[in-house]
Amino acid sequence: MITRSQVQSAQERAARMLDSVGIDISPVERQNIEVAEFGLGELERTGLELVVYVNNDRYCAKELVLFPNQTCPEHRHPPHGADPGKMETFRCRWGRVWLYVEGEETPNLQCKTPIGSEAYYTVFHEITLNPGDQYTIPPNTLHWFQAGPEGAIVSEFSSTSHDESDVFTDPRIRRIPEIAD
Amino acid sequence: MITRSQVQSAQERAARMLDSVGIDISPVERQNIEVAEFGLGELERTGLELVVYVNNDRYCAKELVLFPNQTCPEHRHPPHGADPGKMETFRCRWGRVWLYVEGEETPNLQCKTPIGSEAYYTVFHEITLNPGDQYTIPPNTLHWFQAGPEGAIVSEFSSTSHDESDVFTDPRIRRIPEIAD
Repeated sequence: MITRSQVQSAQERAARMLDSVGIDISPVERQNIEVAEFGLGELERTGLELVVYVNNDRYCAKELVLFPNQTCPEHRHPPHGADPGKMETFRCRWGRVWLYVEGEETPNLQCKTPIGSEAYYTVFHEITLNPGDQYTIPPNTLHWFQAGPEGAIVSEFSSTSHDESDVFTDPRIRRIPEIAD
Repeated sequence: MITRSQVQSAQERAARMLDSVGIDISPVERQNIEVAEFGLGELERTGLELVVYVNNDRYCAKELVLFPNQTCPEHRHPPHGADPGKMETFRCRWGRVWLYVEGEETPNLQCKTPIGSEAYYTVFHEITLNPGDQYTIPPNTLHWFQAGPEGAIVSEFSSTSHDESDVFTDPRIRRIPEIAD
């Protein structure tokens, strides 16, 4: 659960981060910045801010904004009809992000999983993305990511998004936000 | 026809434009900036510089760099097997670009078609893209675009690219460059 005022404050903070690095968004996009709070009530720690540029039946592009050390929790994009699951490329534009995917566990991880949610993080193959770096995540595979100490801005290029069907490892998570008045 | 030294000079100029607006690309991307000269031998007037971030069987993302007043000539993306033709979203990141698509002709166009090639421009519905503006072009429809006096940087989000099958109105055009030593 998140309040309208918390949503608005997070939208303004994300917009300021985009402004500060010269990524222009339209007034409508600014108003519609999506604040994914995931139902855990700890947006600063576990959350994600998104500007959806386009999402049609062929492709999708978004700008992802992460506050300092903010984590997008572990999930996968399952098959959706004839679609084998969303495939996505993360390209770091600003700041730093650590991405975790299936594969051999990296020793001495750069990140800590969010306190109290450790049980719901199970993949630990680490990829560091600095500005200009990118990585493509295959469909239907587990992944999560966390921003560095300054936060991060990441362009996501992908096949069509069906966010409502994302499968999170943490059963407490609600992808579609419930907003209190 | 274009010489290797002309290609390299255009790559360096495009990279400087990206640098100057804070769009980071990797050393490999920098080396591989595509210089589309279209076979007309007038790159400054008719041409396009591209950084291909990703092009897989589901989606594609590129950064397009246009020098001041440079024009990408009129073309369409025809069907390709089961694919109804490339669909693409242009998002202006820096500078200004005028995009021309099928539809009612706009009076008092902002652009001039390139000298000597006027016969090969046939669609004149004008869309102005400033930073933060975007427009989606349906598959298999004619379009062309020209940068403003400072040039432009445009993110292209799209379905899979098959550049070699693009159909240009100007029969002299060669999409895949022929580079002289």
